[in-house]
Amino acid sequence: MNTIQVKLGKRSHSILIKQGLLKKIPALLNAKNKGQKWLIISHYKLLELFGFTLMENLKKSGFKCEYITLPVGETAKSFIEYRRIVSQMVEMGCDRQTNILCLGGGDVGDVGGYAAATYKRGINYYQIPTTLLAMVDSALGGKTGINLSEGKNLIGHVYQPRGIFIDPDLLNSLPPEELNAGLSEILKYGIIRDQDFFHTLLEELDTIDSFNYTSAIIHCCRIKAKIISRDETELDLRRILNFGHTVAHALEAYLGYGRIRHGEAVAYGMLSAGWISKKLGLLKDSEFTLMSQAIHKLPLPKLPPMDTALLLPFIKMDKKNKHGNLNYILLKGLGNAVISKDVTEELILKSLKFLA
Amino acid sequence: MNTIQVKLGKRSHSILIKQGLLKKIPALLNAKNKGQKWLIISHYKLLELFGFTLMENLKKSGFKCEYITLPVGETAKSFIEYRRIVSQMVEMGCDRQTNILCLGGGDVGDVGGYAAATYKRGINYYQIPTTLLAMVDSALGGKTGINLSEGKNLIGHVYQPRGIFIDPDLLNSLPPEELNAGLSEILKYGIIRDQDFFHTLLEELDTIDSFNYTSAIIHCCRIKAKIISRDETELDLRRILNFGHTVAHALEAYLGYGRIRHGEAVAYGMLSAGWISKKLGLLKDSEFTLMSQAIHKLPLPKLPPMDTALLLPFIKMDKKNKHGNLNYILLKGLGNAVISKDVTEELILKSLKFLA
Repeated sequence: MNTIQVKLGKRSHSILIKQGLLKKIPALLNAKNKGQKWLIISHYKLLELFGFTLMENLKKSGFKCEYITLPVGETAKSFIEYRRIVSQMVEMGCDRQTNILCLGGGDVGDVGGYAAATYKRGINYYQIPTTLLAMVDSALGGKTGINLSEGKNLIGHVYQPRGIFIDPDLLNSLPPEELNAGLSEILKYGIIRDQDFFHTLLEELDTIDSFNYTSAIIHCCRIKAKIISRDETELDLRRILNFGHTVAHALEAYLGYGRIRHGEAVAYGMLSAGWISKKLGLLKDSEFTLMSQAIHKLPLPKLPPMDTALLLPFIKMDKKNKHGNLNYILLKGLGNAVISKDVTEELILKSLKFLA
Repeated sequence: MNTIQVKLGKRSHSILIKQGLLKKIPALLNAKNKGQKWLIISHYKLLELFGFTLMENLKKSGFKCEYITLPVGETAKSFIEYRRIVSQMVEMGCDRQTNILCLGGGDVGDVGGYAAATYKRGINYYQIPTTLLAMVDSALGGKTGINLSEGKNLIGHVYQPRGIFIDPDLLNSLPPEELNAGLSEILKYGIIRDQDFFHTLLEELDTIDSFNYTSAIIHCCRIKAKIISRDETELDLRRILNFGHTVAHALEAYLGYGRIRHGEAVAYGMLSAGWISKKLGLLKDSEFTLMSQAIHKLPLPKLPPMDTALLLPFIKMDKKNKHGNLNYILLKGLGNAVISKDVTEELILKSLKFLA
């Protein structure tokens, strides 16, 4: 078992990573079971794949366990679904001692975590990520939230889970394109924070079929745990995790949710931010070429023809905005992300043309 | 100026108390103004009384200031009003640097604070309480939240303000029954935590017309600030602030919101809890008599005839429930509240009959 600590005083918790971990969860939570309610929040496909077995195992170990079903995909994060979750929790008689287990990808983790953050002013929850993206990114760090019709993640809270259980075996049930979408976030960690890891990945991506997910997940979780421990609420360092995300969010919003996967959008976003870093003289040509090579080893969909000017409003809407100046994450060399205020709209537009 | 510190590490902040403080707010916030948006959340009556003047003064001092209006009363804390606030904030272009000023009583403070807690995962806010109840209780401690149709305060978060500005002069605009409703919360601090303060109040309440609100507010804020600094999230000590509140919430829910004021319900709730403490041998007869005398000096409405058995479901719903056992706050002597698990339904029913 790999155990990684997230050090946050009273909000400290562990990330446990091991193939086959799902079966061990009842034993691992046993000491925390004082007869309270345990609530699995997940979507119906995942419940059939893993959730109902987990629930049976918990019940056999003496846990009072119930579940709430969400729709698949981004709809799970709507205001209406959130409202339904908390209503159902009241109906079930959930109290402040109830523990939530979020079993799913980023969507489930975000809305389930937000329900935990806000139900009766906050109850305990655990993350059990089922996608590669969630295992290396969204399940870690306590960002929870929901969408409004006006935009994604407009409502939320940073609220830490009591633990994160990562079972890389769950990835076997994912379609290959879902796995690939997660690879770009893995690559991101190398690009922004760890040059050696980047070079390892550059090599390993030549043979994606034999990619060692478990070891990559452990590596990424270590990096992210350190960053969160230093800057929980994204005042400075944590921002670098948003590398490539301003353009990624704009691409997702412009193309319409569901037309491009988050990980794919991040790949293009990283290319754009890398290109800008190069133009500003922060990233060497050779480094940008290496980064580009690595990203192009990911099986990315071709972007459809876009009117790049129409992307700009989405970029301005991005919540990393500060007093109207964009805080842009750039690279000052490979493996070293920095926060810059020098990125003009013109430069972003040019970088988007470079992508298209 | 009286300055009281709430010590909570990074979430530390000050409570400033002074007659005429409202006018000084622009000067006091000046160092925090970096050109971001400042948003006054209040209801229309208070905006006319104080809010628009505050906004003008802020604007004159170079603040970018806007406002959002809420309905008067508990409706302000509905899910729908909350949804409207955050939508309006998106429309106004509020970003993570936006600061909210909650100008109002508990309702405004709760929903405004909750908007701050959840908008883009949390922004800064300040409390400017306008009722006695808010000045001594609800504006302090970071409890924020909204109601669901299923019950009060079911959704919320503990999220500290960056500062609390208390101007006792604002009380002059309140109708006397509002002021009186706040007196029971003041009395509560003496009863649960400070016997000397209780005896001072017992005397002062004989001449309510000349009651020294400023000095009582300072005293209560000192007690509450100490309690919050020791137990922010109500794991133990902070619970004693709920003295009388289980029955109070049940009375409010049973009689229907608006039929009894929160402070009035708390007065009856304290009588009930005191009576139970006496029955369990924790509170001397003479102490209960003193406490009763003090409470009856408050101008309380007579309770209508009630079917006390019908109150019980509301008491069980109370969120201070733990695995089905009620955590009841009792008195082990005047000025010394404790948490008890020994309170049976039968005893509560009997105490309710004593009230009626």
